[in-house]
Amino acid sequence: MKLNIISIIEKKKLGQALTAEEITFFANGAAKHTIKDYQIAALLMAIRLNGMTREETVNLTLAMANSGEMVDLSPIPGIPTDKHSTGGVGDTTTLILAPLVAACGVPVAKMSGRGLGHTGGTLDKLESIAGFRINLSMADFISQVKRIGVAVIGQSENLAPADKALYALRDVTSTVDSLPLIASSIMSKKLASGAQGIVLDVKTGSGAIMRSLEDSIGLAQAMVRIGTDAGRRMVALVTDMGEPLGSHVGNALEVKEAIDVLHGRVTGPLLHVSLALGSYMLLAGGVAQTPEQAEAMLRDALTSGRGLAKLREMIVEQGGDARVCDDVTLLPQAAFIGEITALSTGYIHSMDTTALGNAAQHIGAGRREKTDRIDYSVGFVLHKRIGDYVQEGEALATFHCKNESDASDVTQILREAIHISPEQTQPLKLIHAIVEAEHIVRL
Amino acid sequence: MKLNIISIIEKKKLGQALTAEEITFFANGAAKHTIKDYQIAALLMAIRLNGMTREETVNLTLAMANSGEMVDLSPIPGIPTDKHSTGGVGDTTTLILAPLVAACGVPVAKMSGRGLGHTGGTLDKLESIAGFRINLSMADFISQVKRIGVAVIGQSENLAPADKALYALRDVTSTVDSLPLIASSIMSKKLASGAQGIVLDVKTGSGAIMRSLEDSIGLAQAMVRIGTDAGRRMVALVTDMGEPLGSHVGNALEVKEAIDVLHGRVTGPLLHVSLALGSYMLLAGGVAQTPEQAEAMLRDALTSGRGLAKLREMIVEQGGDARVCDDVTLLPQAAFIGEITALSTGYIHSMDTTALGNAAQHIGAGRREKTDRIDYSVGFVLHKRIGDYVQEGEALATFHCKNESDASDVTQILREAIHISPEQTQPLKLIHAIVEAEHIVRL
Repeated sequence: MKLNIISIIEKKKLGQALTAEEITFFANGAAKHTIKDYQIAALLMAIRLNGMTREETVNLTLAMANSGEMVDLSPIPGIPTDKHSTGGVGDTTTLILAPLVAACGVPVAKMSGRGLGHTGGTLDKLESIAGFRINLSMADFISQVKRIGVAVIGQSENLAPADKALYALRDVTSTVDSLPLIASSIMSKKLASGAQGIVLDVKTGSGAIMRSLEDSIGLAQAMVRIGTDAGRRMVALVTDMGEPLGSHVGNALEVKEAIDVLHGRVTGPLLHVSLALGSYMLLAGGVAQTPEQAEAMLRDALTSGRGLAKLREMIVEQGGDARVCDDVTLLPQAAFIGEITALSTGYIHSMDTTALGNAAQHIGAGRREKTDRIDYSVGFVLHKRIGDYVQEGEALATFHCKNESDASDVTQILREAIHISPEQTQPLKLIHAIVEAEHIVRL
Repeated sequence: MKLNIISIIEKKKLGQALTAEEITFFANGAAKHTIKDYQIAALLMAIRLNGMTREETVNLTLAMANSGEMVDLSPIPGIPTDKHSTGGVGDTTTLILAPLVAACGVPVAKMSGRGLGHTGGTLDKLESIAGFRINLSMADFISQVKRIGVAVIGQSENLAPADKALYALRDVTSTVDSLPLIASSIMSKKLASGAQGIVLDVKTGSGAIMRSLEDSIGLAQAMVRIGTDAGRRMVALVTDMGEPLGSHVGNALEVKEAIDVLHGRVTGPLLHVSLALGSYMLLAGGVAQTPEQAEAMLRDALTSGRGLAKLREMIVEQGGDARVCDDVTLLPQAAFIGEITALSTGYIHSMDTTALGNAAQHIGAGRREKTDRIDYSVGFVLHKRIGDYVQEGEALATFHCKNESDASDVTQILREAIHISPEQTQPLKLIHAIVEAEHIVRL
């Protein structure tokens, strides 16, 4: 039977499940622009309102992945393993766990993205290191991972073009908030980028794609199921986004914090979550049998300095100034640095993570338009976390700005985004759940 | 607050009702092409799946009507009254009731459409009369109605452009089958064309927009409510489309049948339904108090010849050869005329009205493409109705074709579309329900 898009839309409109053939026809038509945008939009809304079965979601993901380049990492010995975050603020786990995991013998061939809206991006952070190149050819990328076990580059332009077509329409047709569409969009790019082991960091709470824990677990499970059904080793951690994960927000500042962690100078939530994600990468990569064993291996790589050495190696390989690993003052420095003091006394009750991410973007750490240039030096360092006690006049944070006007803006935004309450508040739980295909552990 | 289409789509996606302001913003944006087709498509699908309240449907109809020219019939004394059919086959009620109603003193200022798919159109029928002009200026149109009480012309190009934009997308996005979208589409053009009294003929059954009686009554009620809320005098009759209403299918053939009815030479279902619709036009037009009184007035206009005289007058006014009213052989005649005989003996059990309409289109009575030329002479005349007894070899119908090949085609299609059964069958009920705003009478 000849397929046509109108009858595919009709089927989904009536709440029926689409076949693999129909979904592939749709994805290829979207990728090649042979299906009209208005027909894609109608189908997206029908999917948003009538849902997709697990099988449909897997098929959509595979079809979108197959609509473009499929990266072949098979020349790399071992099980190439990747970590993907749904988008954090002050969240520089990749720069910590990629070298640590590689140092433990699991190859990390990672394609990263740029900052998006209020969330930061690993590529932007890496580019704050002078000379660092994120555009390697596929051959150079694979050869580097074979040589030193780790490489982090920009995502190929030809990955999952069907997803690109859908993604561009979802924002403007109010079809972003669809679990099968979110899950298939993320996973299509992951499947196309070739990793055999994939550890997902699904954020939950203020600033995350999914604000409720239940929805976040649902998204995590949907993505884990897709990857599992596609033959990948999958696990997802649901982590909290009620405040920035690290204390540093801004590109060079986050590189500094990652280096501080790898030096063993900084511990706390950022290290804790990096080790947890890294442990599951070691499990997926087949070099450890239990999370405890995996974490011990990572801690050994950390304390022995092998993690930092691996980061240094990667920076050298990719043309960057590796001296930053030993002298963080070589990273870009902002002209205006100063303190943001608390206007009242009490406990840090909550933070508006989206507002904090937007504040960093506002002062130049992120892009408003795709073509904007980033100021790598700017951002801020938080001195308090949720649950901490703060006195009026005490420093809440330190700003790093390019001028006084930005300093004044960021001071005002942070004072509004960080809520101080007279009542004592518990620190946030960092990891809420570990999700495997049919197995959910709530922590 | 500034309106934007994305939040309007979002609201409908969440199942919320849109405000009059939001709907007007959407309709005007669609009419002016300032809203993208993919956004219109997403909203259409959300409306199809989440519905619209009565108030929203009325607001959409008014907004679409107001998006273009609003015909002002107020210079015409009395209550200009219109009849609208959702599309029939062999259904030439307009040519019968327009002159009869006008002869009874209710002005009929009617804008008609062309044939669409398997259904016929009044304009095409009128153009089978040599010289008949369906393109009058608005001033000439109104002046003719003032002078003789009746005019039937083509619909203005500028009527309800928002509906045009939506209509063009619905077919290709599988959003045709939405009651609020169907009702608002029809009614927007009716409201824009200025009649104060509107009698709707909502078809039900094989070949109709709505196949089930319940859905047809639902559509009738939705349209009556829209018109009522917009201040028009409204009523709808739900009539059967299980077989062609008249016996003649094809443009000149249907004009001939209308003339035969106005001469009093033909009675039966076509006259019956024409009188019923006409009666409600007289009630809406305020010249009769009860359907019985109205029907008596129409019958008097018929038997006295005032109806036929009015048709003659209208044809003369619009430049046509009015001699056809007295000599139907002056209408275009087909070259190949012959009988289609029954292949078995029994009762006419049912007909596939869509197939019959398509058969007429196939032999040239309708257009496949908008630019096709119609052959006014072709069509067929049915000799049997549902419930009639027929013997093998007896004539089921007479074809009127331009060549033998068409004659052979139409013979085959009609034999397949007319189902003969050994079991006795009841004739169809012609009128199933009369629908006023909150009042439904099932017959």
